[in-house]
Amino acid sequence: MNVELVNTGSELMLGRVLNTHQQWLCRRLADLGHVVTRQVAVADTGRDIQGAVREALGRADLVITTGGLGPTSDDLTRELIAELLGVKLVENRDVCAHIENFFAKRGRPRPARTSVETFVPEGALVFLNAAGTAPGLALNIAAGGWPGADGKTPRWLIMLPGPPRELRPMFDQFVVPLLKREFADEIFICRTLRTTGIGESRVQEFIESDLQPLVRRGLEIGYCARPGAVDVRLAAGGAGAEQIVGAGEAVVQRILGASIFGFDDDEIENVVVRLLTARNKTLALAESCTGGNLAHRVTNVPGASAVFLGGVVCYANAVKENFVAVSAETLRRHGAVSESVAREMARGARQKFGSDFALAITGIAGPGGGTPEKPVGTGFIALASAAGVEVKPFLNAWDRETFKQVTSTQALELLRSRLNSA
Amino acid sequence: MNVELVNTGSELMLGRVLNTHQQWLCRRLADLGHVVTRQVAVADTGRDIQGAVREALGRADLVITTGGLGPTSDDLTRELIAELLGVKLVENRDVCAHIENFFAKRGRPRPARTSVETFVPEGALVFLNAAGTAPGLALNIAAGGWPGADGKTPRWLIMLPGPPRELRPMFDQFVVPLLKREFADEIFICRTLRTTGIGESRVQEFIESDLQPLVRRGLEIGYCARPGAVDVRLAAGGAGAEQIVGAGEAVVQRILGASIFGFDDDEIENVVVRLLTARNKTLALAESCTGGNLAHRVTNVPGASAVFLGGVVCYANAVKENFVAVSAETLRRHGAVSESVAREMARGARQKFGSDFALAITGIAGPGGGTPEKPVGTGFIALASAAGVEVKPFLNAWDRETFKQVTSTQALELLRSRLNSA
Repeated sequence: MNVELVNTGSELMLGRVLNTHQQWLCRRLADLGHVVTRQVAVADTGRDIQGAVREALGRADLVITTGGLGPTSDDLTRELIAELLGVKLVENRDVCAHIENFFAKRGRPRPARTSVETFVPEGALVFLNAAGTAPGLALNIAAGGWPGADGKTPRWLIMLPGPPRELRPMFDQFVVPLLKREFADEIFICRTLRTTGIGESRVQEFIESDLQPLVRRGLEIGYCARPGAVDVRLAAGGAGAEQIVGAGEAVVQRILGASIFGFDDDEIENVVVRLLTARNKTLALAESCTGGNLAHRVTNVPGASAVFLGGVVCYANAVKENFVAVSAETLRRHGAVSESVAREMARGARQKFGSDFALAITGIAGPGGGTPEKPVGTGFIALASAAGVEVKPFLNAWDRETFKQVTSTQALELLRSRLNSA
Repeated sequence: MNVELVNTGSELMLGRVLNTHQQWLCRRLADLGHVVTRQVAVADTGRDIQGAVREALGRADLVITTGGLGPTSDDLTRELIAELLGVKLVENRDVCAHIENFFAKRGRPRPARTSVETFVPEGALVFLNAAGTAPGLALNIAAGGWPGADGKTPRWLIMLPGPPRELRPMFDQFVVPLLKREFADEIFICRTLRTTGIGESRVQEFIESDLQPLVRRGLEIGYCARPGAVDVRLAAGGAGAEQIVGAGEAVVQRILGASIFGFDDDEIENVVVRLLTARNKTLALAESCTGGNLAHRVTNVPGASAVFLGGVVCYANAVKENFVAVSAETLRRHGAVSESVAREMARGARQKFGSDFALAITGIAGPGGGTPEKPVGTGFIALASAAGVEVKPFLNAWDRETFKQVTSTQALELLRSRLNSA
């Protein structure tokens, strides 16, 4: 089965927004056994959209478009696809009622422009939008009199709205059941093992020869280097896929064991919150250079409030003194970016918050603030617990946002390894 | 001039990573006057990569590929493109020396696998990788004996490595000068006006009729709805573009004025830090449900340390009491998610940090914790200043991460509007 994705939107081609649909939809479709073979993005013009959809329909059994279904003048996908397929747009009563209701519930007048959203290609399945006004649409291409239709092979063209918070629930509510009904299940197993602290070449050197027998049996291996982490992806299709991927995972586990912090969608913050919850331990934070990134990541985890008491973003030195009891003398003698200050921040945070663990980070995020002795990227992570305080120096010479992300990952890894060995 | 982008990587098609190259490269190329006409992503297989590159070369004057140049076994782009064009791979001494040096400087042994990176297509320009080992490569397609080459029209195929922190500096250092040398400058003006607090349909209703005369003169208008914000994009090409876009901007400014928080790449946190810096005022934060997102955003702005003193993430009630002086009585009587607690948090943070302004947020991020009276998404934002404390209720019924983002945007907008009217 061939699946293609067509993302429409001039904002994509002008680089004004990030295309998050590709990852989200590819991931969901792969989990259903349908790996996307090609993804294309084009501008909101008739030639580009119709060209891309025509080519995709010539190759694929399932084509999904995103964007261009809204109420504004650059929302052209619905009209252009109807024209391409030679089908009329007709007003749909369910959509009318849905939009009326949407604005009534919010006590806002219905904008006149939303009436364009009530017209749908004749014969289309309509997906009412739980989080907005524009409906999703699905056309059975095989059944119609459209190019390539043979009346037998299932072939579908599905149009989804652009905003992610509208597209995602709509896909799960309507598209997943449609695909299960219309297309045979395919077996595809994919497992990602997420490692930290080893470079990409080294990861492959460590594991490749032991995985060779499985590669000959159909195992596909992929590597993805991220700042501070490397993902190893193991995949296989067809009968026996589960057994082959499972055997590959056992090999990687045996060799890289301690460096693996999680699997698939695991983020290290989720792993840490899970471990804290299981051990019934609490956490507090004192962040300088990461400026709240660590607290933000920890609180992205649903249920974090059970183990996370809070944190202080102590940017100014006075805040380090007043909120987490760093001594003025230590700041004066060693400077804010020092092992001693990191140690006092962690100890002070643990004591002030009354937590089991406290992580503290001090460093130079850049672009300014570096010196020859302490260049941009220099810093210290401290972990305080009942066993005392341990401090790790780091040198993360990256741009400001990458620096914050990598540094908070290292802090989480320090805590993860302690929780695992406890 | 036609520009196409080919992103290679099975991890993209499996939805395991987000394709950030599209936005970054499209944006950079548009700024140079070269709007990307099509972007394609395919898996790391010979058929897919060669097919996508062959088709792109048949349409475009400039084709840029990303990914597949690294040392691991799934890095196939270099070999596949050499094969497609019928050109040999030859060892390059500069790349050898660069890789030796890369590992020597870091005191790490050079992995044997990196030797594949030293082989480059014969005749290619080589871009040494300042942040890694795999070089970028550029082939003058017009000059070679390749399909479509006429020896005259400039046509280039450029291959860039996958990791963003390698690709980005390489593009700026090598690709930009190459494009300026090889391709005529094109005029393209694009301006984004970023609004908050009005829905997408309304934004268009307010401005569309007044913009019509400019649309007839070539102005293109685009709208992009984001959580809590709508971007209006004005663009035009060719002679007179600057004047047309400028006139459009004046119209939108006149009509939407107060709702426009910034332009182009402005994030609201950058605008707020700029305003605070200009007015020589300091800021402190007390966050409950946004869990550090607001501090993280503020500290993403280089130079934030000049105005941002710090913040407290007060998840637990005891932290609200101990760190920002919320009274136990208020918590008991009104609950943590209440106007009174928001007010005390802001007042307490301003006093404890000794800042000019303090923003406080309390609410229910979900998915758990909602009640019939206070459903998930309910909360309060408070702003304390010398003028007193003002509190705004909100109902942001979104998923946890969107909730945090929208809520911190609303807090920043509250402060922005006060700073602007001051």
